[in-house]
Amino acid sequence: MPTTLDTAALSLGAQKLAQAKEFLRSSPLEAWLLVVRESKDRPDPSLRLFTEQDFTWNSFFLVTPGRSAALVATFDAPDLERSGLFDEVRTYKEGARAALVSLLGELNPRSIGLNFSKDDALADGLTAGLKDSVEEMLRGTPLAGRLQSAEQLVALLRGVKLPIERELIRSAVDETEGMFDRAAREFRLGMSAREIAGVFHREAARAGVPTAWSSRHCPTVTIGPNAAIGHVSPGDERIDRGCVVHVDFGIVRSGYCSDLQRAWYVAGEGDAAAPEPVRRAYAAVVGGIELAAGALIPGTPGWEVDLKVRTHLTSLGYPEYAHALGHHLGRAVHDGGGVLGPRWERYGRAPYEAVREGHVYTLEPSLHLPDHGLISLEEDVAVGPRGAEFLSRFPRELPVLTLS
Amino acid sequence: MPTTLDTAALSLGAQKLAQAKEFLRSSPLEAWLLVVRESKDRPDPSLRLFTEQDFTWNSFFLVTPGRSAALVATFDAPDLERSGLFDEVRTYKEGARAALVSLLGELNPRSIGLNFSKDDALADGLTAGLKDSVEEMLRGTPLAGRLQSAEQLVALLRGVKLPIERELIRSAVDETEGMFDRAAREFRLGMSAREIAGVFHREAARAGVPTAWSSRHCPTVTIGPNAAIGHVSPGDERIDRGCVVHVDFGIVRSGYCSDLQRAWYVAGEGDAAAPEPVRRAYAAVVGGIELAAGALIPGTPGWEVDLKVRTHLTSLGYPEYAHALGHHLGRAVHDGGGVLGPRWERYGRAPYEAVREGHVYTLEPSLHLPDHGLISLEEDVAVGPRGAEFLSRFPRELPVLTLS
Repeated sequence: MPTTLDTAALSLGAQKLAQAKEFLRSSPLEAWLLVVRESKDRPDPSLRLFTEQDFTWNSFFLVTPGRSAALVATFDAPDLERSGLFDEVRTYKEGARAALVSLLGELNPRSIGLNFSKDDALADGLTAGLKDSVEEMLRGTPLAGRLQSAEQLVALLRGVKLPIERELIRSAVDETEGMFDRAAREFRLGMSAREIAGVFHREAARAGVPTAWSSRHCPTVTIGPNAAIGHVSPGDERIDRGCVVHVDFGIVRSGYCSDLQRAWYVAGEGDAAAPEPVRRAYAAVVGGIELAAGALIPGTPGWEVDLKVRTHLTSLGYPEYAHALGHHLGRAVHDGGGVLGPRWERYGRAPYEAVREGHVYTLEPSLHLPDHGLISLEEDVAVGPRGAEFLSRFPRELPVLTLS
Repeated sequence: MPTTLDTAALSLGAQKLAQAKEFLRSSPLEAWLLVVRESKDRPDPSLRLFTEQDFTWNSFFLVTPGRSAALVATFDAPDLERSGLFDEVRTYKEGARAALVSLLGELNPRSIGLNFSKDDALADGLTAGLKDSVEEMLRGTPLAGRLQSAEQLVALLRGVKLPIERELIRSAVDETEGMFDRAAREFRLGMSAREIAGVFHREAARAGVPTAWSSRHCPTVTIGPNAAIGHVSPGDERIDRGCVVHVDFGIVRSGYCSDLQRAWYVAGEGDAAAPEPVRRAYAAVVGGIELAAGALIPGTPGWEVDLKVRTHLTSLGYPEYAHALGHHLGRAVHDGGGVLGPRWERYGRAPYEAVREGHVYTLEPSLHLPDHGLISLEEDVAVGPRGAEFLSRFPRELPVLTLS
């Protein structure tokens, strides 16, 4: 994001906190209150933007344009104090209510954003009972009626990546591309989807990084036309001549995710090239991604970008893909905020969010050929002032493997 | 728990689902509805009782005394269907509302429990915005007014361990005891708290298990009287003659946690035994744990157990410990439900919950001696019909180390 702050010397957590203060300056919210307890088991993903520390008891993190303050139980305080992250750390022993009312009362914000959101899972960090607790703590004070959703602020803060965040994603993507290269060199005829997944798991273990989503279905491996599609554990389908192999895989490196899909055609006996329907489908997917990259202009609503690609594919005679064109990518593999997706009920308001400079998206149109299988690519791109920059390699030619 | 079901042949997840159905038979709730989305980043810890699978889109898991059903987006379905865990798996594509209303309408429960709770973080698995979404989906249907907190059911289900769960905790505890033994053999004069933590991290890595809470402060290592107390990263304090070394550490093994504290006295020059105040304090802590174990009779409210130990220590002239005597232990290190703690605001209603057969607790009274440091033990116990059974070794004699 084009921040005006000189934050280069600060830790990434401190830079994100400075960014939050900056976004609050032009926000309808006068304060943002992040509340967690047992944060290891009930994490608010926004807390991880600032600190890796976990907090056991009710813990309050208040940010205003000019100030940040934390209120935590005595036992949770020492590490937070040492980190120097918050301008102020207050503590309580038996109960937080009085200290919370007093902290908020001093700043007296006219609107206080909490992390709840119907449409944005990553901005929905506050649990339902804890929200009730906060409301109860403020009952009878002038602060009671001032609680609002902070979803717009959280979407900005998660969505608009700082340069250092974009580079961390790029580095996760780079490493993942290398894993795809090495894995594909191990493909053999008769190898099962489960064995292919094992190769990727070995790559991740060797690099000492977790997979970007549950390793049960990361990677998702789809071989041929009969494999189940979706978030599915790899099965017993095996690589055969003339089949399409498709892999969806990502890692987390230094807290940031990659998310890539690659497809290969396994040459049949005597045919070095893929059949025309496969080549045509791959070219349609590539064309869709080109279209999307060109459409990622700041200010464009996500659904418009999706619709361009959706229409491109249907106009070529393919069925609509049953998912969104792409999603934000960051600390979470589905990083929340808007989505480059259709205006379907399940996406709520997310498709209406506008693309912004600093956003990082996946682009992943897909086709399923009944005779050949899943043809899909997934590229990771960053939005600049005039369009998208590819963080991934975007293989425009279908790779054909001649295996033994 | 004394289940009457023949569940031994089922997976642990299926056993817990059977246990949920059984608890629902005598619950004021007629149905339990667990709702998640982006469950990797926004997990409901109760979902993990049944499955390790993650779900991307709004996903609904409904349990009644006689039936279980899941409603998930098409892409999330295949693995869940294969698992056979739920009696029925339904899917939706564009939006879940119609399918949810129809599923609930068929069963027509008069009360539906959702996972929200002001007092119990582990029963507060539903996020605030997602709760709003569910309410919105049911608006205008007869189901709208029937949503309630499922906290009592969740507390039972997490709290009352099946025999296999108790054995998994015992096995995590056993392994942790071995780690403590080996680590203590590596203690040397001049070794820092941070280096001690490193020894425990190496033990965990060698066993291929994660620490039970953030490895930033698992273990917590406290050397001498001047170290910060609480959930603190280990610092530069070093082992010296005549000091007390205290370690709080746990692991997760097969999904279940251990949580132990051990203390050692490092012999001074020429004195093989610990000074009298240290011995007296250790004996007071041991006595407190004995008292607690005897008081863990099914039906006793948690605060009564805590009060016995608290009074025991204050009657000996020590200050009150600034925390609870103990907490549930299970899949989470603070496994939710009640607490063996004082009736302080921050514990809400948790101290009023009664001890039950099948509960597993930590017992961890602590003392801080201004001249010597933290004297505390933490034992893990399971509640049987007539009192507590120790899962840990409970070292009743203060170990004295003669180091070089």
